[in-house]
Amino acid sequence: MNQTQAVAEQFTKFYYDTFDRNRTELASLYRDPSMLTFEGVQTQGVNSIVEKLVSLPFQKVAHRISTVDAQPSNPNNQSIVVTVTGQLLIDDETNPQMFTQTFNLIADGGSFWVYNDIFRLNYA
Amino acid sequence: MNQTQAVAEQFTKFYYDTFDRNRTELASLYRDPSMLTFEGVQTQGVNSIVEKLVSLPFQKVAHRISTVDAQPSNPNNQSIVVTVTGQLLIDDETNPQMFTQTFNLIADGGSFWVYNDIFRLNYA
Repeated sequence: MNQTQAVAEQFTKFYYDTFDRNRTELASLYRDPSMLTFEGVQTQGVNSIVEKLVSLPFQKVAHRISTVDAQPSNPNNQSIVVTVTGQLLIDDETNPQMFTQTFNLIADGGSFWVYNDIFRLNYA
Repeated sequence: MNQTQAVAEQFTKFYYDTFDRNRTELASLYRDPSMLTFEGVQTQGVNSIVEKLVSLPFQKVAHRISTVDAQPSNPNNQSIVVTVTGQLLIDDETNPQMFTQTFNLIADGGSFWVYNDIFRLNYA
């Protein structure tokens, strides 16, 4: 596996583990220039993004990752575009919903933060 | 609608109209640094990418766009990350397949070319 893919898979696992355990902790992954488009609604900045994520109307959530695809996203910076497909289970529902999420990650020292975040449920 | 979203919707419509009419014409949208990850298989460069797209085993295809979400993807360059969800119909099938596609577009003068392209079918 190449380095880009390895970073993407490590990030993605950390992101959804954190999301499913305690959404407020995702604040460490966003910064003020970060953008989130969640089901078509745009927010920007770490505080607004975490507020949006925490306000989502469910108590329990579990993400199951199906695919993670990653590519270097800029010839001049160390950044990675990642598209994830998967399923999520909300509260006590038993029918998972399919989702797609795209991240554009920017390196800072040894870690990456989220510059772009686009989330969509996939309806059949 | 903001400018980023307008560019993304215009690009997306042009891309799928071209794909469904004559895949070889997509060559104008890729360059040598362009990357495509199609169902997990990576290719790079305009020739390899077009060869991959043309070799897909169907004669007729029709994409239906469901959602287009876009954000500026780099603070230093004019570039746009776009995630599309939609359905595609292949040959004479009547059951559409759901797909997700992410583009990272880079501006050059008045037009954009595809730096990153990630395609996935979504299986329930």
